[in-house]
Amino acid sequence: MTEVVISGCCGKMGRVVNEIISNRNDAHVCEGIDINAVKYSDFTVVSCPNQLTSKPDVIIDFSHPSSLGGLLDYAKTNGTALVLASTGYNDEEIAKIKSAAKEVPIFFTANMSLGINLMRELAKKAVSVLGNQFDIEIIERHHNQKIDAPSGTALMLAESINEASDGQYNYVYDRHSVRKKRDAKEIGIHSVRGGTIVGEHEIVFAGRDEVITITHSAASKQVFAVGAVNAAIFLQGKPAGLYSMADMI
Amino acid sequence: MTEVVISGCCGKMGRVVNEIISNRNDAHVCEGIDINAVKYSDFTVVSCPNQLTSKPDVIIDFSHPSSLGGLLDYAKTNGTALVLASTGYNDEEIAKIKSAAKEVPIFFTANMSLGINLMRELAKKAVSVLGNQFDIEIIERHHNQKIDAPSGTALMLAESINEASDGQYNYVYDRHSVRKKRDAKEIGIHSVRGGTIVGEHEIVFAGRDEVITITHSAASKQVFAVGAVNAAIFLQGKPAGLYSMADMI
Amino acid sequence: MTEVVISGCCGKMGRVVNEIISNRNDAHVCEGIDINAVKYSDFTVVSCPNQLTSKPDVIIDFSHPSSLGGLLDYAKTNGTALVLASTGYNDEEIAKIKSAAKEVPIFFTANMSLGINLMRELAKKAVSVLGNQFDIEIIERHHNQKIDAPSGTALMLAESINEASDGQYNYVYDRHSVRKKRDAKEIGIHSVRGGTIVGEHEIVFAGRDEVITITHSAASKQVFAVGAVNAAIFLQGKPAGLYSMADMI
Amino acid sequence: MTEVVISGCCGKMGRVVNEIISNRNDAHVCEGIDINAVKYSDFTVVSCPNQLTSKPDVIIDFSHPSSLGGLLDYAKTNGTALVLASTGYNDEEIAKIKSAAKEVPIFFTANMSLGINLMRELAKKAVSVLGNQFDIEIIERHHNQKIDAPSGTALMLAESINEASDGQYNYVYDRHSVRKKRDAKEIGIHSVRGGTIVGEHEIVFAGRDEVITITHSAASKQVFAVGAVNAAIFLQGKPAGLYSMADMI
Repeated sequence: MTEVVISGCCGKMGRVVNEIISNRNDAHVCEGIDINAVKYSDFTVVSCPNQLTSKPDVIIDFSHPSSLGGLLDYAKTNGTALVLASTGYNDEEIAKIKSAAKEVPIFFTANMSLGINLMRELAKKAVSVLGNQFDIEIIERHHNQKIDAPSGTALMLAESINEASDGQYNYVYDRHSVRKKRDAKEIGIHSVRGGTIVGEHEIVFAGRDEVITITHSAASKQVFAVGAVNAAIFLQGKPAGLYSMADMI
Repeated sequence: MTEVVISGCCGKMGRVVNEIISNRNDAHVCEGIDINAVKYSDFTVVSCPNQLTSKPDVIIDFSHPSSLGGLLDYAKTNGTALVLASTGYNDEEIAKIKSAAKEVPIFFTANMSLGINLMRELAKKAVSVLGNQFDIEIIERHHNQKIDAPSGTALMLAESINEASDGQYNYVYDRHSVRKKRDAKEIGIHSVRGGTIVGEHEIVFAGRDEVITITHSAASKQVFAVGAVNAAIFLQGKPAGLYSMADMI
Repeated sequence: MTEVVISGCCGKMGRVVNEIISNRNDAHVCEGIDINAVKYSDFTVVSCPNQLTSKPDVIIDFSHPSSLGGLLDYAKTNGTALVLASTGYNDEEIAKIKSAAKEVPIFFTANMSLGINLMRELAKKAVSVLGNQFDIEIIERHHNQKIDAPSGTALMLAESINEASDGQYNYVYDRHSVRKKRDAKEIGIHSVRGGTIVGEHEIVFAGRDEVITITHSAASKQVFAVGAVNAAIFLQGKPAGLYSMADMI
Repeated sequence: MTEVVISGCCGKMGRVVNEIISNRNDAHVCEGIDINAVKYSDFTVVSCPNQLTSKPDVIIDFSHPSSLGGLLDYAKTNGTALVLASTGYNDEEIAKIKSAAKEVPIFFTANMSLGINLMRELAKKAVSVLGNQFDIEIIERHHNQKIDAPSGTALMLAESINEASDGQYNYVYDRHSVRKKRDAKEIGIHSVRGGTIVGEHEIVFAGRDEVITITHSAASKQVFAVGAVNAAIFLQGKPAGLYSMADMI
């Protein structure tokens, strides 16, 4: 049983983390932290880490980078593991995280979704097996309000494939403007936009008369909360160090 | 029972047409035409239309535009229906086809695949119902030797959708170069290339929390032969005129 | 501009209806009805229809069958159109709805999703064109808590296809128990269950070397709210009668 | 450069193997074996292994189990590697293969497709990462003439997943007959049949608000030839032993 404190427990993601843990039997929320401490039926909520009365194994943070200092101090003092799932840390903050990870175990990753991180591993495995005999294409689909294209996750997937292939691929976003056969050294990246699609990523490996596709479809941002809880359980009992989804998978 | 003569019966497509008809009980091959007349176990093969001894209801032509003159003359003299499935007619030949269609029924279309033509009708129906509330995207997938992008069929589908919408859409092939939300008046067209994929077309209608997709996947060029046989049966007993898949569907 | 009253405006679906209308410029919420009348920032909420002070074109009801009597009385007295989107009406209530529809326009349907109803029309069109030459299969995917299989919507789709084909098809749910070729007169219906999938329906038309699929994917139950708003706008100015999605499409 | 002899070189699969090798620069066909020895433009064809005049690195066999004895004798005498891609060996023959593999390297596997074997590895990786938090379903699609359901490959995939999970899963083929929630310990296996579909296998991992799918689609049986050529190149220089796709991936 992993004893968890949720930092940012009254926010949208914090509530989801609580709901997920309450449906599992290998983790338990012993206390919460939130600057807007409202009443919570299941546990006490304090406004900063040094007010905690329980002794958690792990703190999952879905609050804000501004909470970082207090969390790192508490973790180092008490030997508590940290899952940092807030977004938007600046370089100075990231340096502090890395430094603290020499003393306590810290989980810190660009994408908390277990599925996307698994997809990344599967794609690397696939490219190492299929080598140059299969053409690789990535199709990502998102809602019509998204302003960037391709998605950060599509690029992350392409880069992971490239790393597993000695960086031999370049990315192609438009085939309309040229009349020529596909180059074996390209990865086509296609950004489909429409409606309210939360996020779908598809990697196509097309060979001679066979096609393998790996697809990930997200129905909500809750997948990040699930990833954080899994990370917390994974972190329990680990030595000091900086951990990411790649370690967990 | 529709009595059929296959023009180009010894070619690749002609043989497929014969095989398809032999598995149906509503059509029968009574004779063949081929300049390279080889023996055929099932019927006599002659080298030009005016050597035919049978009296077919329809001639299906999968030979070459150079056969056109002989076929039109025969058809007009004998009141025979024609399914013209050869490709590459020039403007003069097309004018001759249109002229002959005043005297006999002629089936002539850009794409003999029943599936693609149905898809076109379904897309037009969908856009008329969904109106401006759904975003439309087209993804087509073809082998890595194809030099044009997007495919002619993808453009035909986009244009059919546009016709059913007062031409309000423009086509977008690359979202990578700009940072902005999707415009409601665009159709994104994506050309995926890889391996030996024969041809796949997907139309996405993405709305608020629901997505409808219509997909067509071709496994071989035989689908054109099936379309031609269906056209032949459709044509039997029809009055003179120029017919296309749209009439049949 | 269609003036709308939302019945059940404080419930989950009522709130979604309000949000959808506030983002459109062809409809406006003039008042709300809810037995649990809470304050609403945008309009007045009354507890029953006869307290309404505005004169709506249409009332959209997402409350409960127990509201039916009051709504029908109000509609008949004031000549107001009704979109009945509550579920669970019994036979007596349905009879009352049909009777009232002789005096006022009433929209009443088994499934308020525009997408599913369009899919139904597309499937009927497809089967009428493809006839007996394509095999039909339905795959539906839902979350792991769903107890019925196949889904009601999958059955509705199968029945629509069957109606368009003189009822020639029977449904097959398990091929594991027999060793035989597929019968042309069967529709295979497959119920995939897993995770939290909201609902996906796929109809496959598989022919000789080509496959057409029509897929609908729902990301939330909000699609029913969208369907109801569209129905309200459609209903404005219509003569008395019972309307369904089929009329709208 | 791997020097290859094709056994069964005049058969359908043998010709495809030759075509594939002629398009690669890391392998070369030095001679062929076929009991129906016809002229081949590129190399000499003999009727049995002991007539071979060249000294191949590997023999790829796509002939018939009856060729096995001669091939094993030749291989053991000459230290030649073997890729056995014929199907239908009986137990006695399999015992002979295993025995010979003590002296020479032999590649022998149930499915020569690189894609399917990769899919198997990816599925095992996925289940080891996702554990019990994701529901697993398999959907396979084949032509309407196939008499067995589910496909052997679908069962092989299910068994691979089960092996990676301590055999905790049982297989469910029909959910229509019961009204109950999905059991976490089941893998639903669905056999879609229609048209001329060559073969498609999809593994669905459905979790909380995210779904990962791995799909393999075969467009022809040529994929087995590609797998055999890759196996031949892999085998060159390997010590004696029995090898399968799992060793190669």
